[in-house]
Amino acid sequence: MNKIIPTWLQAQTWRQSWRQDMVAGVVVGIVVIPQSLGYALLAGLPPVYGLYASIIPVLVYAYIGASNTQAVGPVAITAIMSAQALAPFAQANSSLYLGLMAFMALLVGIMLVLAALLKLGWIMQFISRSVMAAFITGAALLIITGQLKYILGLNVQADTVWQLLWGFGQQYVHINYQALSMGLVAVLLLWLNRRYGTQLLQTLSVNSAVAILSVKLVPVLVIMAASSVVYYWQLTELKVVGEIQAGLPAFSWPDFPAWQQWQALLSAAFFIALIAFISSASIAKSVALQRHESFDANQELLGLGLANISAAFFKGFPITGGFSRTAVNVEAGAKTPLAGVFSAVTIAMILVFASSSFKHLPLAVLGAGVIVAASNLIDAKMLKLAWYSDKSEAWAYVLTLCSVLILGLQVGLLIGLFFSIATLIWRSHQPHVAVVGQVGESEQFRNVQRHQVTTWPNLLLLRIDENLFFGNSDSIATRVWQEVNAQATVKEVVLIFSAVNHIDLSSQLMLQQLARQLAQRGIGLHLAEIKGFLMDTLAHTPLIQQWRGNIFASTQQAAHTLKPSIKELEYNL
Amino acid sequence: MNKIIPTWLQAQTWRQSWRQDMVAGVVVGIVVIPQSLGYALLAGLPPVYGLYASIIPVLVYAYIGASNTQAVGPVAITAIMSAQALAPFAQANSSLYLGLMAFMALLVGIMLVLAALLKLGWIMQFISRSVMAAFITGAALLIITGQLKYILGLNVQADTVWQLLWGFGQQYVHINYQALSMGLVAVLLLWLNRRYGTQLLQTLSVNSAVAILSVKLVPVLVIMAASSVVYYWQLTELKVVGEIQAGLPAFSWPDFPAWQQWQALLSAAFFIALIAFISSASIAKSVALQRHESFDANQELLGLGLANISAAFFKGFPITGGFSRTAVNVEAGAKTPLAGVFSAVTIAMILVFASSSFKHLPLAVLGAGVIVAASNLIDAKMLKLAWYSDKSEAWAYVLTLCSVLILGLQVGLLIGLFFSIATLIWRSHQPHVAVVGQVGESEQFRNVQRHQVTTWPNLLLLRIDENLFFGNSDSIATRVWQEVNAQATVKEVVLIFSAVNHIDLSSQLMLQQLARQLAQRGIGLHLAEIKGFLMDTLAHTPLIQQWRGNIFASTQQAAHTLKPSIKELEYNL
Repeated sequence: MNKIIPTWLQAQTWRQSWRQDMVAGVVVGIVVIPQSLGYALLAGLPPVYGLYASIIPVLVYAYIGASNTQAVGPVAITAIMSAQALAPFAQANSSLYLGLMAFMALLVGIMLVLAALLKLGWIMQFISRSVMAAFITGAALLIITGQLKYILGLNVQADTVWQLLWGFGQQYVHINYQALSMGLVAVLLLWLNRRYGTQLLQTLSVNSAVAILSVKLVPVLVIMAASSVVYYWQLTELKVVGEIQAGLPAFSWPDFPAWQQWQALLSAAFFIALIAFISSASIAKSVALQRHESFDANQELLGLGLANISAAFFKGFPITGGFSRTAVNVEAGAKTPLAGVFSAVTIAMILVFASSSFKHLPLAVLGAGVIVAASNLIDAKMLKLAWYSDKSEAWAYVLTLCSVLILGLQVGLLIGLFFSIATLIWRSHQPHVAVVGQVGESEQFRNVQRHQVTTWPNLLLLRIDENLFFGNSDSIATRVWQEVNAQATVKEVVLIFSAVNHIDLSSQLMLQQLARQLAQRGIGLHLAEIKGFLMDTLAHTPLIQQWRGNIFASTQQAAHTLKPSIKELEYNL
Repeated sequence: MNKIIPTWLQAQTWRQSWRQDMVAGVVVGIVVIPQSLGYALLAGLPPVYGLYASIIPVLVYAYIGASNTQAVGPVAITAIMSAQALAPFAQANSSLYLGLMAFMALLVGIMLVLAALLKLGWIMQFISRSVMAAFITGAALLIITGQLKYILGLNVQADTVWQLLWGFGQQYVHINYQALSMGLVAVLLLWLNRRYGTQLLQTLSVNSAVAILSVKLVPVLVIMAASSVVYYWQLTELKVVGEIQAGLPAFSWPDFPAWQQWQALLSAAFFIALIAFISSASIAKSVALQRHESFDANQELLGLGLANISAAFFKGFPITGGFSRTAVNVEAGAKTPLAGVFSAVTIAMILVFASSSFKHLPLAVLGAGVIVAASNLIDAKMLKLAWYSDKSEAWAYVLTLCSVLILGLQVGLLIGLFFSIATLIWRSHQPHVAVVGQVGESEQFRNVQRHQVTTWPNLLLLRIDENLFFGNSDSIATRVWQEVNAQATVKEVVLIFSAVNHIDLSSQLMLQQLARQLAQRGIGLHLAEIKGFLMDTLAHTPLIQQWRGNIFASTQQAAHTLKPSIKELEYNL
């Protein structure tokens, strides 16, 4: 932010690599056309909006983003999340819908920029892999089901699997068989290409990078072939993209929603921003790692945020980094963000000079492309893995997937997040607490259950082996009471914090209450081995300032001070 | 569950204490009348429903609940949560509203019973104290604002503070001055009584328990006085409770909502159940602690759940353990759940024989009682505490409070939960990772930055000081790469897990990926000191089964195996 010329431009490495970047940019510009059109359709927009969203935001990201080779643009998951969020408020393709979609991009962008300013880059680690995999799998299934309407040539709109199936059940008499046959052929071709294309070319001794790129070009050939078929045989019953006005997207203001819709749109934008950032950052980070480059998550937030804001003003919709786009970019040899500039220019030129070439492109074929792309997102392997490694993660997967399918993307994600975080709290709600005693005359104090140690009847030494937070403070109090009740002669309790890095407010209050309650029974509560940096943060809190017991530097010192002198022991006997 | 006669009945301690229990039960039965009527009003129900909800559910809880002295019934927080949840679906006091309220009690009860069967008692530790305090404070402010309509004699209904103020602004010309004066007098009396009553009586040398109980009885005197005033001066312009049909609540089926309302009602029931359980369990637990009794959170879930289910079939609404009810019960000398039975019988007898005594009770006075009770829930001290002890908790407080006031109880609670959990993840997202070396020729390996230790140029020993989970797995990978890049001669990396108790799926996948990526650079990745129980859970996972590096029992062994022999060292030189 504090520099006007981005590092990659200053570094001038682009002077050596601009030819490679140009080739990569042009290749990306052409290859992403079918998916851009398809994802716009998925978002409930005219297909050409997918191309619009691949120009200005791509330039903005190239200028600011954190990655050298990340390619941003419309992506399946954010497209369907946006469509679900707007469904209650406007009819897909209506002018209100287009305006609200731009507004959604604006909201997502603002949230990402705010997150960048608040340095929330760490949020990319917020969702566990199993929940993320389940969410994406659920979204992919919804996408596939949702695209069936284009392949069947029907008019159905719904969020959940049940609503979709219900819609199909009602409309099946209106199936368009031209759409169906073209769609099925396209699905088959694209699937075979995706599954076996690279292998096939490699067995024909084609260079690996060339093979990968050729496979990626096949969708472009398929849409060209489909358009030609429609044009040549005059298949007028098919829904096609239709006339597109030649030229670049004009500047336009987003539509601001009515007051009652803000809450729903804000919460939708929040989840779209979260998912957009996490997917983009994880792609960019893994590419950076492969290329031995560093990656700055906050810079990525800023780049994505501004790219989305710019999308809002040029007939766009929420965008993010795309796995497939980025892979093509890397394979085609991109070295700097200059490749992004070339890809934007390529798409702009196609819009200016060749927009009529999409006129006869059937929606069924675009839908086929989206279906094959989405089928690649289905990750059932993760469920199997989770099942073998950790049952609770497997349950998180199943719960998230079912919730997404039955209750929709947003609620599903929320439930998944909630469950995985609940698991986290559950795991630490019963912290390990050990009764310790002195090893011989040494300075070492060890667990009484595992070592031969000295203990004293009036003194209870408890070592707490986890950070104290609201999720376990109650359990710790309960545990202390158990030990106190088990040893009736106890007069002094020492909590040893050698393994504690943090004590939150809930636990501070618990400790104060515990001290008061123990005092009522005539038992003193003391602390030992509070780490230096923890003491710094606690020093001015009521916990420490109003603490009545002792605070010992070492357990040794605590034992020495509190253990009964020999006289007392004799007296006790 | 597996016993038909509850422990307290079997133990037969009630034989000794039944007289005390009877006194306490009768006292509670009388004292809770004003609040029961008031909270039913708060929930948007006819006041008498508050008495209905204090009979059958109280008997069920006495039979099953976990606490000897906990008194359950209508409570302010759950009452307002229920009212907000139903507001979009039915007009308060309408017959649909009454039926849906019973359904809500049923849902809450079923959720609590399910939680009991799933042993989710640990969930009582799910919300941090600052978030809980802010939530209750916000609810109290909403309750107070919401009750102003009874004191002003206006007809306003709304969820958020803005909507309420807006409503008052529109209707202020209709203020009923009889209601206003009675309401203000009642607020003043009740507040003075609450604030200074006990003190006053104690300075007059009244026994402490008697003083506390007398103060609690004042609200009953206030409603009796108010009813008499209305009756004597024939104040017919006042809204009063009106005729109540004498007798016990009849059995009735809850209304089942329309399909579209299920999602909203389920989510509302979830939050009501969560708050009902947490508040009830924390009261019951602290009382149990004072009385040196044990407390079983799962039993409490079951008791509360069945009490709510029973409420659903006898004109009830969601109930839980009440702080004030329980305090009265304890002070009045209750020893066993038999006290609950007597309190239910007392209320039942009042309904049968004295229901006409509420006829002239003005709603303004009930509202005044609710306002004074709610004002006691406001906890601003917690904000101050949080500010001094941990800024992030203070922010959590402010954010939760503002969200509750502006966006409503449910969204506010959700945001507060989300924020406090995000803080939790943030705190552990940068785990402590230390590069270690050998202390002399010993078996000890210590942080190179703090001790004089031996290291080897080809070998990087990293000790990870936190559990591995999705929130920090990425940071750990980044940290390993930093260390590897900083020491160009590294050929072997050993991760020491001596402080690791858990490795979740996300982290397992991270470790596998890290090993692959390091291998591509010709660097080996090894593990050391995996704890026994952790190894047991990991043994059958792909992480361990497909692990290519070594797994060492001790760091010593790792260093011994991987460090260069002297020959190699010479060769390197």
